[in-house]
Amino acid sequence: MNIKDQLQHKIDFKTKPLGALGRLEEIALQIGIIQDSLSPKLEKPVLLVFAADHGLADEGISPFPKEVTWQMVMNFCAGGAAINVFCKQNGIDIKVIDAGVDYDFPEGLPFLDAKIAKGTRNMLRQPAMSVDECRQAMEKGKGFVKAEAENGCNTIAFGEMGIGNTSASALLMHKFTGISIEECTGKGAGLNDENVVRKKKILKEVSEKYQVENPLDILATFGGFEIAMMVGAFLEAKKQKMVILVDGFIATAAALTATRFDKKVTENCIFCHTSKEKGHQLMAKYLGAKPLLDIGMRLGEGSGAAVAFPIVKSAVLFLNEMTSFEDAGVSNKE
Amino acid sequence: MNIKDQLQHKIDFKTKPLGALGRLEEIALQIGIIQDSLSPKLEKPVLLVFAADHGLADEGISPFPKEVTWQMVMNFCAGGAAINVFCKQNGIDIKVIDAGVDYDFPEGLPFLDAKIAKGTRNMLRQPAMSVDECRQAMEKGKGFVKAEAENGCNTIAFGEMGIGNTSASALLMHKFTGISIEECTGKGAGLNDENVVRKKKILKEVSEKYQVENPLDILATFGGFEIAMMVGAFLEAKKQKMVILVDGFIATAAALTATRFDKKVTENCIFCHTSKEKGHQLMAKYLGAKPLLDIGMRLGEGSGAAVAFPIVKSAVLFLNEMTSFEDAGVSNKE
Repeated sequence: MNIKDQLQHKIDFKTKPLGALGRLEEIALQIGIIQDSLSPKLEKPVLLVFAADHGLADEGISPFPKEVTWQMVMNFCAGGAAINVFCKQNGIDIKVIDAGVDYDFPEGLPFLDAKIAKGTRNMLRQPAMSVDECRQAMEKGKGFVKAEAENGCNTIAFGEMGIGNTSASALLMHKFTGISIEECTGKGAGLNDENVVRKKKILKEVSEKYQVENPLDILATFGGFEIAMMVGAFLEAKKQKMVILVDGFIATAAALTATRFDKKVTENCIFCHTSKEKGHQLMAKYLGAKPLLDIGMRLGEGSGAAVAFPIVKSAVLFLNEMTSFEDAGVSNKE
Repeated sequence: MNIKDQLQHKIDFKTKPLGALGRLEEIALQIGIIQDSLSPKLEKPVLLVFAADHGLADEGISPFPKEVTWQMVMNFCAGGAAINVFCKQNGIDIKVIDAGVDYDFPEGLPFLDAKIAKGTRNMLRQPAMSVDECRQAMEKGKGFVKAEAENGCNTIAFGEMGIGNTSASALLMHKFTGISIEECTGKGAGLNDENVVRKKKILKEVSEKYQVENPLDILATFGGFEIAMMVGAFLEAKKQKMVILVDGFIATAAALTATRFDKKVTENCIFCHTSKEKGHQLMAKYLGAKPLLDIGMRLGEGSGAAVAFPIVKSAVLFLNEMTSFEDAGVSNKE
C-alpha cells in the first residue's frame, strides 16, 4: 500500500464511525502525505510576520494612516497585538520581519531586519518594485524559511502587516485569476462604501496602466515587499516539505502568486480561514481550497492561521493517539 | 454604561480594525455578559460525557450494535477515544457518567455511576422512560453540574454516547419545533440510504403513537437517560452562570429541550459546531444559533465542543491581553 492508502486505513479503523471526524480526517491525511509518515508530528511551529509599506497608500486606499504599519510593528514587538496573543496561546513562535517599512526603527527591537526599501513606489505612477527588488524580497523570504527548517521547524504560517496591502493583493488576484477588479476589491481595514468605490477606480487605473505578463513582472509591478517575501517563503516551505498554514486574503494572494512559480505549492497548504475581505472566497475557490474556519475575521497578521492551529493539531493528534476498533475491543459497523 | 456597552467599548479600542475579529468579538461580548465582567476567565473547563442505551436500538435504527455503548464507555475510561484526545489536548477535564448503559461494568472503572436503568424501553412499544425516571435523570444531571460549579468550574461542555440516540434526538426536535420527522432524521453513525428510509418510518410510527404535550412528558416519552441528564445539566449550568459549550445534534436537542424549561438557557450557550447529521442545521437555525465550526464532524461524545474550545479561549484572551490603540500608541482610523 502507498502512504495515502495506509493513512486512510489507519484513519478508518479508529474507534469512530467512518468519516465522522470530517475535515480533521482530510487534514490528517494531507499532513501524513506531506511528511510521508503514518505518525506525523507538528514540530516547532513558527509564524513569520512580514511588514512593509505601500506607496499606493498615498492615494487614500486605506482608512488607516500609513504610520500604522510601523506602529503595529512596535506593537508586535511589545507583544500587545492580536497575533501575539494567539501565538502565545497556541504555542507558536512568532518572528517579526521588516520587509520594507517606511520608518527608521530604534535599535534593539526584537525583529528581523530585511528592509528592501522604505516602502514600495506608488504604482499609480510607476511599478511598485523593480524586478531586482522583487527578486531580493523573494530570496530573503526563502532564507527565513530555510533557517527555520534548519532549526527543526516543520510547520509554518505567514502573517503580514502593511497599510494598503489589500490593494496589492486585489491586483495580484485580478492579474492571476482574471476575476474582475470589481470582485477582487473589498473594504480592507474598514473603508466606507464611498471609499471602496474610489479604491476600485484607482485599482482599475493601476491595473490598466501596465502591460506585464510573466509572474515575476506581475509581482514586481503590483505586489509589495511583504507579499514578495511571503511568495518566496511559500516556495521554500514547499521545498522543505513543511506544513504551511495559510491565513486570509493577503496570504492567500501570496500563495496564489507562488503557484505561478511552483504549481504544487498548495499541496502543502492548509487554508485556515475565510476572510471577510470580499475577494477571499472567490480566490479560495479558484485555488480549490476549502478554508477551515469561517468566523468573520479580517485582521491579517496571520491571526486566522494562529487561531485555527489547534484544530490542525487535533487532526494530527487523533491520528496518533486514538485507539483502533481492534485495540479497544469495540465492535465495528455491522 | 452597562456591562454590554463597557465590553463593546473595550473590544472596539483594541489595536485592530473595528469588528475585524468577527465571531471572536461576539463570543468575548457574550462571555463578558455571562460573567458580568470586563475580564472574564474560563476556569477549570470540564466535559461531562453521559452514556446510556436506547430500547429502540432493537429495531435496527443504528448501523452499530448496541454493545458499542458500553464498549465505548470502556474506551473513554482507557483514554483511547476521540474525546479523550481532544480534551487532553485542550486542557479540559473529562468525566464519564453512566446514565443508563445496558451493561454491568466491572468495579473500579474511572466513571461516575448514575445508572437509572439498563437502557430505556423500546418506544415503539411503550414510552422510553417513566416521568419519574426522567425527573431522576434530570436531577442527577443538575447534581453533576452543581458539583463542578462548587469545585470552581465556570465553563462546561456536555457529550454523549448511546447507540440509537440520534433517533431520540430527532423525535425531540420534531416534537419541539414542528419540523417534519423526515427533515429531523439523518444517517446517525452511518446508516445507508435504505436504512435511513426505514429509520424514518419507525420514527414516524413512534411519533404518532403518543399524545403528549408538556415538555417533561415529551422528554420522558421520546428521550433517553443521557439526554434527560443533559437537559438537567443545561438548566443547572445556566443557573450557575456558566459558559456552556454545546456540541452537535444530540447536545443541541438537549439544549432545545432545556429551553422548554428555561427559555433563557441559550444565553449561556456557545454552539460549537454544525454537525453533518441532517437535522442539525435546521435545529440550530430554529434556536437562532450560529455554530462556530463547520468542519463536517458527526461523532458526538462532545468532540465538536472540545475541538472548538481553543477558539472560545482565543476570544477571552484577546479581550484580556490585547493592548488598546491608546496604550500601544497606534493611530486609530482617520
